[in-house]
Amino acid sequence: MLAIPDSEYKDRIKKFQKNIREAGLDAALVHANEADFANVRYLSEYWPTFESAGVFVPATGSPVLIIGPESEAYAKTRSKIRRIAMMVEYRESAEPEYPGIPVAHYKDVVAKAMPGRRLRKLGLVGYSVMPLPVYQSLCTELPNVKLYKADDTLITLRIDKSANEIKLMKRAFQISELAVEAILNEMKPGMTELQVIGIAQREIYKHGGEYEGHALYCFCGPATKHAISRPTHNTIKRNEVIQINIGARVGGYSSSVGLPCSIGKLPARKKRLVEFGLEAHFKTMELMKAGKPAGDVVRQYEGFVRNRGFKKYMLYGPCHGIGMMEVERPWMESTSTYALAENMTFQVDTFFYDKDFGLRWENGVRVTKTGVERLSHKFMKLVEL
Amino acid sequence: MLAIPDSEYKDRIKKFQKNIREAGLDAALVHANEADFANVRYLSEYWPTFESAGVFVPATGSPVLIIGPESEAYAKTRSKIRRIAMMVEYRESAEPEYPGIPVAHYKDVVAKAMPGRRLRKLGLVGYSVMPLPVYQSLCTELPNVKLYKADDTLITLRIDKSANEIKLMKRAFQISELAVEAILNEMKPGMTELQVIGIAQREIYKHGGEYEGHALYCFCGPATKHAISRPTHNTIKRNEVIQINIGARVGGYSSSVGLPCSIGKLPARKKRLVEFGLEAHFKTMELMKAGKPAGDVVRQYEGFVRNRGFKKYMLYGPCHGIGMMEVERPWMESTSTYALAENMTFQVDTFFYDKDFGLRWENGVRVTKTGVERLSHKFMKLVEL
Repeated sequence: MLAIPDSEYKDRIKKFQKNIREAGLDAALVHANEADFANVRYLSEYWPTFESAGVFVPATGSPVLIIGPESEAYAKTRSKIRRIAMMVEYRESAEPEYPGIPVAHYKDVVAKAMPGRRLRKLGLVGYSVMPLPVYQSLCTELPNVKLYKADDTLITLRIDKSANEIKLMKRAFQISELAVEAILNEMKPGMTELQVIGIAQREIYKHGGEYEGHALYCFCGPATKHAISRPTHNTIKRNEVIQINIGARVGGYSSSVGLPCSIGKLPARKKRLVEFGLEAHFKTMELMKAGKPAGDVVRQYEGFVRNRGFKKYMLYGPCHGIGMMEVERPWMESTSTYALAENMTFQVDTFFYDKDFGLRWENGVRVTKTGVERLSHKFMKLVEL
Repeated sequence: MLAIPDSEYKDRIKKFQKNIREAGLDAALVHANEADFANVRYLSEYWPTFESAGVFVPATGSPVLIIGPESEAYAKTRSKIRRIAMMVEYRESAEPEYPGIPVAHYKDVVAKAMPGRRLRKLGLVGYSVMPLPVYQSLCTELPNVKLYKADDTLITLRIDKSANEIKLMKRAFQISELAVEAILNEMKPGMTELQVIGIAQREIYKHGGEYEGHALYCFCGPATKHAISRPTHNTIKRNEVIQINIGARVGGYSSSVGLPCSIGKLPARKKRLVEFGLEAHFKTMELMKAGKPAGDVVRQYEGFVRNRGFKKYMLYGPCHGIGMMEVERPWMESTSTYALAENMTFQVDTFFYDKDFGLRWENGVRVTKTGVERLSHKFMKLVEL
């Protein structure tokens, strides 16, 4: 099986510690939960379920993986970080008390990770998903420690994809394409949107996926105008836009392949927007290459859409980062201030909507010196079954 | 399709508001994310994905559903709560800025939900998953409001299951049984644990499930000793314990059916612990009925296990609540202080482990006046394929 080698995990910790020091911090506390797992898994390979997890990383020395009270045996077999502490702050959200299971406190973790050294400034990574029990215990148990939002110390590493990461992503995209292919072969009018999802789930696991890369999308008719939605028991109908976005996850790396399709012909008005969407999708890829300011890609994309008269159908703009999470930093927005760099990976995410339907073309790309390398490419055409 | 009727959502809000008033609070802010969705969905039917969600419920008057910037069209079709606010605190964890999408602030939500009234005491529900951006904005925007952990105001309602909730749970358990049946028919040596999960996923969606009820389990060999774990690319082998825990979710209600099984005979030592586990599983059900203190169930269960000489194989106690979440309040622990009541639903969760393997029997029950009604029952026997 493809996997990130142990040496790369060691490298990640080293680079992260360099960033921690450069940010003037004494240590960082990283947080993840079962859905938003990436920051902890990036450093440790550990992927919690039911419980959450953290990694305490001192500016120098060895990190500590922090888990909930039920995951010790699991974490010992999975974690690349050898030192493990169990803490009640990382328990299940139903808040069991676990009488009889001994747990550690932040003081113990700090003593273990930085013996004899003083902790004054602690960076918090995964700030947007860090829950109150973690924060309250930090405030109570480490009252003299200053806390800082420090996501950038880790995110800057995650953005620059290694050759091993790209391999995992390519495999994830391949599996997504196989799942889309199965859907296009088997989908029939009268099936529910959720039954279509079942076809994709079957294929993802059959071909070596470890999970869905995101909550899978299959919507038919008016629900296609939702930028975010969930599949329902509504049935697939003829001559309607059917939106499919299928993502497999492999070795911690996510993907998604998205296309609008139909069973039977689409009415001309809908077909026109679907086809323009595909044009805009290709246009976005044309606009990307290493060195280009992300804000410029967005402005040029928006200019293209405006000039062609489709601005009113646009909700937001054309790309977001993809890697461990199907949506991760950085987004490309008109306010973005960074430049694209080689080995950044983006999901080109082209969404347009009208009053009664919408469509989304989605494919992954890796930024190269001269343009982009496509991570998926099989379904970049209008399919009318 | 089975579903909670609109009138029951209205009832829930009314009962919740009574609890808010009785707790001396002016309002409650409820939080949920895509994985830990229950508190918000219980009140609104809204189930976020990518983004998180909240419900602001004043002690009297109409609640407000709070969503992220991308979910407006989706929330409008799904939410039973008509008033909806978009806030950046509920955006995706990758923290896009969404230039051009107008968002609300807590002040606006409070003004909308309790016009002309003063907010002094705000209860926080879903405290264990409430993230820092929500908390920081509350502190900054509502500096004179006192915040209280107030999970009990909602959890006490969720614990007492209605007839409609029981119907959804029974259907979810039935689908789990169908998925287990498919696994037992199709599982072969050499398949990976993840491929076995794919069989279950296919069946869950085929039979009307909306999602997995929890991250599905299939572990073979040593990994069965993990109380919590995730399936891997390891292959299914003969004459080893294979642990299967499969849960479907239907209309927001989760289930899980768990059994150890094998392909070929198990060695006597393993078979003995598997069979004792099943005995302890039935024993737990015998100990339960309305009026019985939960702590007594645990002490009697632990006494039974001790007397039979299996104490050293036990990690924790015999039941946890089940409903929208596969694990929810209340747990049954030796420290529990509540009594069982009719229409509480529990997952009887019987886990034992030795140095090189483990096993878990899991089935759902509803507490009745005289004992328990089983929500699943098909696989309460040792299956050696």
